[in-house]
Amino acid sequence: MRWILPSDRIPPAWFNVAPHLDEALAPPLHPGTRQPVGPDDLAPLFPMALIGQEVSTEPWIDVPGEVLDILRLWRPTPLVRARRLEQALDTPARIYFKDESVSPAGSHKPNTAVAQAYYNKAEGVTKLITETGAGQWGSALAFATSLFGMECKVYMVRASYQQKPYRRVMMETWGAKVEQSPVDDPDHPGSLGTAISDAVREAATSPDSHYSLGSVLNHVLLHQTVIGLEAKEQLQLAGEEKPDIVIGCCGGGSNFGGLAFPFVPDRDVELLAVEPSSCPTLTQGSFEYDFGDTAGLTPLLAMYTLGHDFVPPSIHAGGLRYHGDAPLISNLVKSGRIKATAYPQGKVFESAVQFARTQGMIPAPETSHAVRAAIDEALKAKEEGTERVILFGYSGHGLLDLQAYDDFLNDRLDAG
Amino acid sequence: MRWILPSDRIPPAWFNVAPHLDEALAPPLHPGTRQPVGPDDLAPLFPMALIGQEVSTEPWIDVPGEVLDILRLWRPTPLVRARRLEQALDTPARIYFKDESVSPAGSHKPNTAVAQAYYNKAEGVTKLITETGAGQWGSALAFATSLFGMECKVYMVRASYQQKPYRRVMMETWGAKVEQSPVDDPDHPGSLGTAISDAVREAATSPDSHYSLGSVLNHVLLHQTVIGLEAKEQLQLAGEEKPDIVIGCCGGGSNFGGLAFPFVPDRDVELLAVEPSSCPTLTQGSFEYDFGDTAGLTPLLAMYTLGHDFVPPSIHAGGLRYHGDAPLISNLVKSGRIKATAYPQGKVFESAVQFARTQGMIPAPETSHAVRAAIDEALKAKEEGTERVILFGYSGHGLLDLQAYDDFLNDRLDAG
Repeated sequence: MRWILPSDRIPPAWFNVAPHLDEALAPPLHPGTRQPVGPDDLAPLFPMALIGQEVSTEPWIDVPGEVLDILRLWRPTPLVRARRLEQALDTPARIYFKDESVSPAGSHKPNTAVAQAYYNKAEGVTKLITETGAGQWGSALAFATSLFGMECKVYMVRASYQQKPYRRVMMETWGAKVEQSPVDDPDHPGSLGTAISDAVREAATSPDSHYSLGSVLNHVLLHQTVIGLEAKEQLQLAGEEKPDIVIGCCGGGSNFGGLAFPFVPDRDVELLAVEPSSCPTLTQGSFEYDFGDTAGLTPLLAMYTLGHDFVPPSIHAGGLRYHGDAPLISNLVKSGRIKATAYPQGKVFESAVQFARTQGMIPAPETSHAVRAAIDEALKAKEEGTERVILFGYSGHGLLDLQAYDDFLNDRLDAG
Repeated sequence: MRWILPSDRIPPAWFNVAPHLDEALAPPLHPGTRQPVGPDDLAPLFPMALIGQEVSTEPWIDVPGEVLDILRLWRPTPLVRARRLEQALDTPARIYFKDESVSPAGSHKPNTAVAQAYYNKAEGVTKLITETGAGQWGSALAFATSLFGMECKVYMVRASYQQKPYRRVMMETWGAKVEQSPVDDPDHPGSLGTAISDAVREAATSPDSHYSLGSVLNHVLLHQTVIGLEAKEQLQLAGEEKPDIVIGCCGGGSNFGGLAFPFVPDRDVELLAVEPSSCPTLTQGSFEYDFGDTAGLTPLLAMYTLGHDFVPPSIHAGGLRYHGDAPLISNLVKSGRIKATAYPQGKVFESAVQFARTQGMIPAPETSHAVRAAIDEALKAKEEGTERVILFGYSGHGLLDLQAYDDFLNDRLDAG
């Protein structure tokens, strides 16, 4: 059963979680002076509109009409009740998922890519430069810049570039240029951290070019809140007052934040971030100021981190291979509002295949972390005999990750 | 702009075009006796319910509730107005497409796969055996049998098996077994014809197993008419009385028939089937009785054909590499109700990339034939200064065909 809102019901404003924090958000620090960064420090990389959103404490921020016009190509996205999965698990829980895989790039990432391209173009920028891990963010920005007639350059984590050649082709089909990162060491598997360094370095020194980040920053998570806002309205249509728990996979935090933030004020709704055991930022990292990238070019962010030189193993969920986490997510984990858990890759793919064979859809490796946690919650509900309402984020499809499924089905996957 | 019907508006009955033909449909003939085949001849391969549908002249045939329950996982599919493409072409035409790419298998094929799995299971069959060209049909049947808890065996055209390994992984993820065809000649690139032979051979000799065909036959095209029925209703929602022209790519005919048949009674609506220049069945074949497969195991069908031993070149639109065409389509082409045209691969991919860079979606190579024809119709409307309403079938996405885009973008694609 699917609940789909009409085209005119895309949320007209983004939900800003900043006013709802229990503890004040620690400001980013300049990497040289270690003083809080000001707008001028960020201006070489971002347009003023996004810098303004980064520090805004307004509860709602209007979505520009031109952004809505493009989001309408695939939004509102469906909310789906996973009845066939419920039946297979024989659980009294009701499992819903918000399907962001229907976007042209196949994930939630275009929600912010479109907004970022719009604000940059409005301020005269003609080229955006970015990094990508699994390729989902790079695809999203290539898609968005293509629709705005802008140039796009993507530094892709080398491990993903080699594991996922079709993600590169996808970006090139939309007209982007793609390069492996790190550019200066062809034997290094790369990480989001190295790719951010490469992208920031080029953006800071190129005229009419800006940098674009697909996660972590406040404005990025802000743009993703259309996910949770739509899901709230759709749950009402489905006859549910509210979910008992909201689950999402969490790398840099944009997918999880986008779904969960609109539920932060609802104190009785549990929020669960799911990460890979091999890159356990929230569950095993420490909360401190650290660089967003490997080379130390970005401002220092107050966040959970495994250290900016941490290089996670080449797991298939490339989008979750980030040493840090969004300051907003980190703040809410620290204050206890958000809980976190971690799963090893083998258990994640077991659930991915179960999902594919019951619901028919093949989830991205990142998304499969949320699928796993949702299944475990549903099984707990069965044990306890409680009618839990579970909402999870179906952040992307796995159609460009089938190599991972091939490895799993043929026992070639590292289970860790 | 998208028009989406609510879940309860999937058509409750299929549209049977048989009562609307100008000339009687010539019956299939037994390959040995050359006499019209009866139900008993087909019983080793198909369940009686489908054999009944194959010869039915009822104008409407009810869709079983259990089939509707599964179709509801992704149906009704969106009708989309391609405004950004219209703007890029600067055309007065209004271009709509019916988006069948949103199914779990990524194409229109599951519409009949689900129905066929249902009817077979209802008659006690536990395993379905089939062939696949590009892999779209095999994926669809693997998906459908997975949801019904049945076994599935797919003979995949060797050229596609090698060009598209991820299609195989997709089928295996849903639990199917996949083998290259022809099984007895590892140097042969294969064709739909050879794969049908392999599949029919196994099905005819295996207990509790039936054969399943993804196109060509009357009951297959019947199941696809949900596409055109929904599109008709959605066009009304969009404020269009009717389209001036309906365009679809055409290999075996199930995509084209599914979209176009409900418009056959509307005499002023043009119907245009688009095929590849390298496999020009409707535009250059002859209308005669021919085998559906290479080995001559199937009944003889009255259709346009290039000869059952015709082996088309290994173009990327594997789903259009069939020597024949559905008898229902062939009948309507012969009587002049349906027109046909053919395009070379290079021109098709030019349009595919233009579509991706304006609408944001990457079409399957097969689908791109329809995109090309729709663009040409829109340009003609611009020349003539007429407000034509164009409806085309977006039969599938190209996310598992990105190798073809890589070849095209790097001038490695055979343009013919």
